[in-house]
Amino acid sequence: MSKTIRVALYERHGNPAEVLRVVEQPWPVPAADEAVVQMRAAPLNPADVNAIEGTYPMRPVLPATPGMEGAGIVVELGQAVGHLRLGDVVILPHNFGTWREACAVKAEQLVVAPAEIEPVQAAMLKINPITAWRMLHDFVSLDRGDWFIQNAANSAAGRAALQIGRELGYRSVNVVRRPELIDELKAEGAEVVLLDGEQLREEVAEQTERAPIRLALNAVGGESALRIAKTLAADATIVTYGAMSLQPLTIPNGMLIFKNLNFTGFWVNKWYEQATAEERTRTFESLFEMARRGLLRAKVEKTYSLGEATEAVRHAMQNKRRGKIVFAM
Amino acid sequence: MSKTIRVALYERHGNPAEVLRVVEQPWPVPAADEAVVQMRAAPLNPADVNAIEGTYPMRPVLPATPGMEGAGIVVELGQAVGHLRLGDVVILPHNFGTWREACAVKAEQLVVAPAEIEPVQAAMLKINPITAWRMLHDFVSLDRGDWFIQNAANSAAGRAALQIGRELGYRSVNVVRRPELIDELKAEGAEVVLLDGEQLREEVAEQTERAPIRLALNAVGGESALRIAKTLAADATIVTYGAMSLQPLTIPNGMLIFKNLNFTGFWVNKWYEQATAEERTRTFESLFEMARRGLLRAKVEKTYSLGEATEAVRHAMQNKRRGKIVFAM
Repeated sequence: MSKTIRVALYERHGNPAEVLRVVEQPWPVPAADEAVVQMRAAPLNPADVNAIEGTYPMRPVLPATPGMEGAGIVVELGQAVGHLRLGDVVILPHNFGTWREACAVKAEQLVVAPAEIEPVQAAMLKINPITAWRMLHDFVSLDRGDWFIQNAANSAAGRAALQIGRELGYRSVNVVRRPELIDELKAEGAEVVLLDGEQLREEVAEQTERAPIRLALNAVGGESALRIAKTLAADATIVTYGAMSLQPLTIPNGMLIFKNLNFTGFWVNKWYEQATAEERTRTFESLFEMARRGLLRAKVEKTYSLGEATEAVRHAMQNKRRGKIVFAM
Repeated sequence: MSKTIRVALYERHGNPAEVLRVVEQPWPVPAADEAVVQMRAAPLNPADVNAIEGTYPMRPVLPATPGMEGAGIVVELGQAVGHLRLGDVVILPHNFGTWREACAVKAEQLVVAPAEIEPVQAAMLKINPITAWRMLHDFVSLDRGDWFIQNAANSAAGRAALQIGRELGYRSVNVVRRPELIDELKAEGAEVVLLDGEQLREEVAEQTERAPIRLALNAVGGESALRIAKTLAADATIVTYGAMSLQPLTIPNGMLIFKNLNFTGFWVNKWYEQATAEERTRTFESLFEMARRGLLRAKVEKTYSLGEATEAVRHAMQNKRRGKIVFAM
């Protein structure tokens, strides 16, 4: 029983490559309502980096273990846990601190994933596909055949929205900034992929045959958000969930008063805080069903062991990646 | 029967003082479902000026008669009109073209005002108090004792919102740009009146004892809109209905993503287009009830006859007025 685990942690905010350490801790002992999960995969997300830097709007008590996403295998059950079995693949609760080799978690907070889904893919359903699913459900009631538009269509959330939109029978205009992404997204099933720019409004009108677009998903902000807002029908909603350009939205007053566009936001952390266990389960089950058919796969550029945390976080902070950086345990 | 009326009209868009003319037309003859209204009062609103200039988002067929607000007396009834009586004070339908001495109007589109309310005050319920009433009802469900905040609190719509808010039991933070307005608005019953500026957020927190503010009414845009947005609770809604600063709203991404503020708009023209006759009547009746008690009175700086249209419109376009300019017939 002297087995130990490695855990990443930081004692102060700062440059992740400098403040992140890996320490040894005792193997976790479950309380009666807990399960012990041996971690299999924990991605390094931009929000994790920001949390370590201290620039994320939720600040943990320090010292803290980073990691908002993770999945693993149930290896031990507290006495009072009935519904889990040893060997279950489970997704960790939000804001748990997943960059560790094992943990004891309240059993009711774990979501069991189907065995056919690799833990690394199960883990990565938790932020981007959930975000995409909720944004396509919670703001505007679309019917089959209706259009939505999104920028950053090549991001993980963008690709998820594109695929989920197809499942739901919606048509999507996918806006990207690099021409080489057009064929790539079309190969993934995107119907319309357009380059962002001054001509966007006319190109969208042409491609959609001027069909009304009542929902936009915006992960860029700044000029790009304004350009997609200009493609929308009166009374439409634009949901901001990211800010890649780091520029604020500048909204002409007439867009609010006369066109009655609605500007709102989505933050998956808040959704996890407010959703009931049943809502969480129901959303995940829709995503599992797609993942079983090979959809919603996130690309992994490289996996690291937890001992390589500093190297991994440096790699995760590089702009020119072609996939996620993930801790594999 | 050779009686004539005077009607203001313009044949092309441009400077109102140059393009506006007054012509003679025959006294109107009602169709079976129409009533003839002898106009009593027709205000000159900024939207009327913009419509003549051609800068308003709704463009009439030219030649056109301006005037979105007006009230008069029923002087003749078509054969099929049952519910109106001669002598009724009625409010004209929206976008009718009220700058004329008389008109034939579909009887079902007229709203009968109580006889105790002067026609000029009845006419002026139609844009600003209606706007204020709808904004306090259609966006956020407030309870008695809840706070809202508004800028341009000294505008006609702002004063109406302040008074209607009190009727509904809401508390309001009223933001103005000139110190001499503080006592004036307090005398009208405003509980909290603050000067706009960098210190606004702290002053609001102090005056409201940090109570959550879930609704903001914005008629200024630009920096002022952002400052009031910063005083709001998470998930709050900011309704833009005017743009006095002529500056767009610049919204930091975090306000949308993390604070989940909702930015939307209100345009009274659209409300009139979409409201049922019953909704219109019900809203006006609430306002009549207040007007009977001397509330919701708009100040009049000067009245003009229709023959003085050019002078009147020049006066209406001056910035430093202390009340409305109105045609009295």
